[in-house]
Amino acid sequence: MSSSTQPSAESLASEVATQSALLNDLRKQQADPAVVEEARKKLGDLKRNLALLQNANAASSGSKEGKKKERMLLKTPKGTRDYGPAEMFCREHIERIVKDCFTTYGGSQLDTPVFERKEILAGKYGEDAKLIFDLMDQGGEQLALRYDHTVPLARYLAMSGAITTQAKLWQVGKVYRRDNPVMSKGRMREFSQADFDIAGTFDTMIPDAEIIGMVCAILSRLDVGEFTIKMNHRKILDGIFEVCGVPPEKIRPISSAVDKLDKMSWADVKKEMTEEKGLDPAAADKIGEYVKHKGGPELLDLLRADEALMANANAKIGVEEMGILFGYLKVYNVMDRISFDLSLARGLDYYTGIIYEAIVEASAPPAFKNANAFASSSATPSVSNATPPESQQSKKKVSKKAATAADEEEEIDESQVGVGSIAAGGRYDNLVGLFTAAAAGEGKKAPGLPCVGISIGLDRIFALVWPKWVERGMRSKETMAYVMAAGDGLLEERVRLVQELREAGIKADFMLKRKPKLPAQFDAGERDEVPFAIIIGVDELKEGLVTVKEQKWHFVDGKKVKIESENKGIKIKRAELIQWLKDTPVYKDWSSGKLIA
Amino acid sequence: MSSSTQPSAESLASEVATQSALLNDLRKQQADPAVVEEARKKLGDLKRNLALLQNANAASSGSKEGKKKERMLLKTPKGTRDYGPAEMFCREHIERIVKDCFTTYGGSQLDTPVFERKEILAGKYGEDAKLIFDLMDQGGEQLALRYDHTVPLARYLAMSGAITTQAKLWQVGKVYRRDNPVMSKGRMREFSQADFDIAGTFDTMIPDAEIIGMVCAILSRLDVGEFTIKMNHRKILDGIFEVCGVPPEKIRPISSAVDKLDKMSWADVKKEMTEEKGLDPAAADKIGEYVKHKGGPELLDLLRADEALMANANAKIGVEEMGILFGYLKVYNVMDRISFDLSLARGLDYYTGIIYEAIVEASAPPAFKNANAFASSSATPSVSNATPPESQQSKKKVSKKAATAADEEEEIDESQVGVGSIAAGGRYDNLVGLFTAAAAGEGKKAPGLPCVGISIGLDRIFALVWPKWVERGMRSKETMAYVMAAGDGLLEERVRLVQELREAGIKADFMLKRKPKLPAQFDAGERDEVPFAIIIGVDELKEGLVTVKEQKWHFVDGKKVKIESENKGIKIKRAELIQWLKDTPVYKDWSSGKLIA
Repeated sequence: MSSSTQPSAESLASEVATQSALLNDLRKQQADPAVVEEARKKLGDLKRNLALLQNANAASSGSKEGKKKERMLLKTPKGTRDYGPAEMFCREHIERIVKDCFTTYGGSQLDTPVFERKEILAGKYGEDAKLIFDLMDQGGEQLALRYDHTVPLARYLAMSGAITTQAKLWQVGKVYRRDNPVMSKGRMREFSQADFDIAGTFDTMIPDAEIIGMVCAILSRLDVGEFTIKMNHRKILDGIFEVCGVPPEKIRPISSAVDKLDKMSWADVKKEMTEEKGLDPAAADKIGEYVKHKGGPELLDLLRADEALMANANAKIGVEEMGILFGYLKVYNVMDRISFDLSLARGLDYYTGIIYEAIVEASAPPAFKNANAFASSSATPSVSNATPPESQQSKKKVSKKAATAADEEEEIDESQVGVGSIAAGGRYDNLVGLFTAAAAGEGKKAPGLPCVGISIGLDRIFALVWPKWVERGMRSKETMAYVMAAGDGLLEERVRLVQELREAGIKADFMLKRKPKLPAQFDAGERDEVPFAIIIGVDELKEGLVTVKEQKWHFVDGKKVKIESENKGIKIKRAELIQWLKDTPVYKDWSSGKLIA
Repeated sequence: MSSSTQPSAESLASEVATQSALLNDLRKQQADPAVVEEARKKLGDLKRNLALLQNANAASSGSKEGKKKERMLLKTPKGTRDYGPAEMFCREHIERIVKDCFTTYGGSQLDTPVFERKEILAGKYGEDAKLIFDLMDQGGEQLALRYDHTVPLARYLAMSGAITTQAKLWQVGKVYRRDNPVMSKGRMREFSQADFDIAGTFDTMIPDAEIIGMVCAILSRLDVGEFTIKMNHRKILDGIFEVCGVPPEKIRPISSAVDKLDKMSWADVKKEMTEEKGLDPAAADKIGEYVKHKGGPELLDLLRADEALMANANAKIGVEEMGILFGYLKVYNVMDRISFDLSLARGLDYYTGIIYEAIVEASAPPAFKNANAFASSSATPSVSNATPPESQQSKKKVSKKAATAADEEEEIDESQVGVGSIAAGGRYDNLVGLFTAAAAGEGKKAPGLPCVGISIGLDRIFALVWPKWVERGMRSKETMAYVMAAGDGLLEERVRLVQELREAGIKADFMLKRKPKLPAQFDAGERDEVPFAIIIGVDELKEGLVTVKEQKWHFVDGKKVKIESENKGIKIKRAELIQWLKDTPVYKDWSSGKLIA
């Protein structure tokens, strides 16, 4: 984020020099292409700012009375960004895989407005409600941008009235949170989520298992690297809190504190529980003993052996349901992905059953890679604690302070933040009922509709997949043929041929000039690595022929380079061109998606 | 739009009865399925409201002190709506065709945020700026929802700095206008636009022709019926205004008035010009003589013969460019779609060259179907005036009053409004330069970037295509196989088989219950018209077999009905099931998209 105080041209020029040197170094070291790309972009930004500043200075020194006119800041709003062609090609690829899995698992698409009536969102997000973007009061309704897809879905289900609904619904779209952005890790104020939800009364844990099975299939196809599904059950967690002596009104706030254990040390979480939220330190310590456990289904035996816990009705139901779920997940063949983690709490208020979060190896912020949240507790050995908890120094904390009125937000040190969870969700059996009840009026029992769902964070997945695309030097579009004229422009002939190709479904382009030179046309086609150059000439036209030259690229020193060949291309009968192109291996590979996935 | 004053239960009950009767009548008359669907929905809404009201009354009469609690209105914001599964299936189909054409014509995708810094949007939309949705000031930047894709694109191009850019860029997404909605015709406050733009310096009118060629290809594939591209040139129009004596500062406001000729009579437009905008009535009459002309390229000869007009520099350039364009459009083979229409003005300020609007037969509001805007002018015969202009009574006017602070907006009579234009655009050579100049500061010449583009109104296209889908009884998803158990639930076996099918790319589903009855499973599969019922039984499992029953539906009296057959299905080796399914004609038809398009 650029600051609004203007730097001097001198300081900017020195920054440009420093950044240029850095970029050169990175290139020499053959650094990670994504890092090089980032450095290159930063240099571009600096140079542009410098040019603008120099222009402005020149203008103001020449203008009457030397007054500076206020210049417009050309930027996207804080926490948002544009995605250009190469990035969108990658994002479309990600979305296509996600949508394809959604429909393969029987889902139907839903689309709700980007904004909702404010009262629909009110009271659904606990401590995070302050992050909602409100629309200005311009008369009429009070509106706010949607914060997630779950609440609009519940509103839709309550409106559609069919409480006997059994449906698998998915929605892909942008949601909005006025949080502190960490752009490079895909943490944005405007971000894309892909949600899949199962609504309806079914048998215990079967829809839950279906969702987990599906998300494992999606993440496996997405090339995000090794991933783990952390899983817990709100009823087990609430049972633990009750057994440890947390008073009912403090259960959600204490749950919120526990949820921070993946980002904060136990000592800090305990401090929040006791000092900020007034919990008895003894109760906090008891909670600490429970929530450090993580592992597989064997953790259930540990809980079942805990008589105090099993005497709690919530915990008992939670443990039973987890047992059933693990049984089903074996059938889905995904148990090797699951980590039963008693510290997983999830921030949102509306969950009532299992909760889960998918994380990848690359998610952990660097300082936490080999760290453990329980650095300061002299813990008894837990199920998964293979390494002793004393060996870390992970005291750094990522503070998520809310946006203040002055927008003077704390800057986050991006190097200390990981991508975070790339998908998350859980069961929420009461949310639809909340809406039907609010609409029905006080004192009336309104019908509910049990739901379970998952939100996939498309920007975070993009942050993981994109560097690999850069590394592989992916194209940014799929144009297959570039039509050129060798002779005298031949504009009409080029248009006719390119239109013929397009009508046959072949992605084709040409240069939008009357008499372009042949080298300029080759350059234009090569910029997009178009595999077939199709050249028309006056003589060949008379003979009903065109020249086709296949072009290939390879990767040299982090850059795509065209493979030069002596081959001048082959002559093809114009009438046979379309079929000839469609029969080539490279055409088949592109149209089957093989060269993208 | 429901009113916020509560009706009584009695009046609602009577409305329900009236609407029920209407629906029955419509069904008996075999009315247009879209009309029946609309009536059915309205009845559902009324019934739901009645139930809510009865619940509320029951609750309040039973509650202490008889106080009514304020009930929540379950609805989407004004001018927005949800799209459910069947509608989204149709919308996805439309979007897929549009995106496919965009990439076939060499386009690359761009994505910009849904909101922009307010200053980016300021001063770009002329009289319509009052329709911009602002975000609340919550500290930090002043933001507003994007009004179109063109201004964000220009901001992106200015930021990316490469003024030598030559690019074809497209963006599909929602844009926002606080206008009076006419929902049934696809006129919304939140609506989807698909934009395609060509940026860069090319030879005159070649990119313009490429855009027109593309939009004709898209509309032809979209099944919107017969369409016409109305076309004009801002320079011709400005030349006309200058020749008729419009002072420079009034050119854009007068242009705005002319733009309303497709919705208002000439008398009303003239009134706006003279009474509201202070134009000399003689000048208005001269304009009236020009702007009534519409026709083909021969209209250019008429203009070329007009010595006064040809002495105007703007008009001369405009006429020359139109001539070049028509030449190219012949090569694109789309001249039969073009109507050169001197009354087309387009509301937005930023156009500088050709402007166009695609309209369909179904677009015209009923009262205007055979009407003519020049009802009250004793016009001299114009190129296209085959029918005399006196024969109408189209005085009804669709007033687009802006939203007032109290949101007491005029209700629009929906029956009087057509779908309107389904695509529109033009050349805007100065918009990018406006941004680079504003960023560079006063007095500095900043580089510009010529652009030409088109916006396709996806909601209006949906409003045209959707009734045809309803009529044809289209499915709402593509699930190909429904896996059932004949015997004792066999949950694990069902999950294993359904997962195997999904891994092979076959869209498959099953009932999320432990021991569902067979008829219930058939019902669930049939609700989505799943073509293959796959039944597993204990004995067959042992033999490595499954039973496959192909199911078919046909259309009887406006309703899809399953074709009952005596066929109990055939037994297939389980190991061969996937290949067997993929080899069936119905599978091939669905996966090739043949059954959708």
